[in-house]
Amino acid sequence: MEYFPAPLEKLVEQFARLPGIGSKSAQRLAFHVLNLPMEQAQEFANAIVEAKQKVTLCPICRNLTAGGPCPICANPKRDESLLCVVADPRDVIAMERAREFHGRYHVLHGVLSPMNHVGPDDLQIKPLVDRVAQGGIREVIMATNPDTEGETTALYLARLLKPFGVKVTRLAYGIPVGGHLEFADDATLTRALEGRQEL
Amino acid sequence: MEYFPAPLEKLVEQFARLPGIGSKSAQRLAFHVLNLPMEQAQEFANAIVEAKQKVTLCPICRNLTAGGPCPICANPKRDESLLCVVADPRDVIAMERAREFHGRYHVLHGVLSPMNHVGPDDLQIKPLVDRVAQGGIREVIMATNPDTEGETTALYLARLLKPFGVKVTRLAYGIPVGGHLEFADDATLTRALEGRQEL
Repeated sequence: MEYFPAPLEKLVEQFARLPGIGSKSAQRLAFHVLNLPMEQAQEFANAIVEAKQKVTLCPICRNLTAGGPCPICANPKRDESLLCVVADPRDVIAMERAREFHGRYHVLHGVLSPMNHVGPDDLQIKPLVDRVAQGGIREVIMATNPDTEGETTALYLARLLKPFGVKVTRLAYGIPVGGHLEFADDATLTRALEGRQEL
Repeated sequence: MEYFPAPLEKLVEQFARLPGIGSKSAQRLAFHVLNLPMEQAQEFANAIVEAKQKVTLCPICRNLTAGGPCPICANPKRDESLLCVVADPRDVIAMERAREFHGRYHVLHGVLSPMNHVGPDDLQIKPLVDRVAQGGIREVIMATNPDTEGETTALYLARLLKPFGVKVTRLAYGIPVGGHLEFADDATLTRALEGRQEL
């Protein structure tokens, strides 16, 4: 048969390419767009192109920015000697939400993953090394995810940065605040025990 | 804080407006688009605008089409005297998939729903009445969904069309093929009993 008219079919395909959107959802989304006023559809289309055109990487920390250094790197009140290394721009937002960290960031845009063919050259590692090599940084805090790839990446970077005489630390592992001991997995409990602190 | 750069924030908002897309999914989708090659992002944006610009309603059956009568209305092999009334263009596709119906369609683009302020004037009801009034149609099959609103719409249309001396029928209710009696709800079982046929 005659399925949807071609321009609609094309839009369904575009939505279906997005991660986590199946073919039924893609249809629903395409119909939704079809029912939008032309003005709103145009706005949506513009948002896609403008995000691509205007969002760049901060020349210093490689976080996303709309041109020039990002607001955190541009903020003179942030401690330049303290660097927090994260895998993803969303992790910066999570850290900022905690309002506890007043240094600067470095965004890797991924983690080392031989399985997915992600090597050191695919990440923003060289700019990090350059930053540390320039001096003025006293501590680098690794804040990659506590999984195998995040761990590996943190250890790899620690080995890479140590020669510059910088202190390299890692976020603490443990029971999440508000969590329940009985639901904590073995690995977390082990880490929480290892990292126990005097009261 | 400094959240995402403004153009990215805008794109996240656009995605978050789509039905069934929460704020976390919207972020994930926006990041996905940001990582697309410019060419593919442009393609996506174009698909949105072109679907809006090029997809129109078939002047005869009100199904979606890319200009002019839809392929089904344009097909001289389809029985002009048999009309199947559906609520949504997706229902046409479901019917066509069954390969059992060889007449034509009429798409209402919704069902009557006082709760949602959808009245007869909000649906493609007038063009349906006009088609039937023109003559040449011997049977109109109501194929709206078997829920309260679909039912009400079918009954309303039946009353509207009967004066033209046309036969108005309804898709049969019953146990779905491959379904299990034990899982059928009472209403379906009652309808299946009422509609029982001699073997």
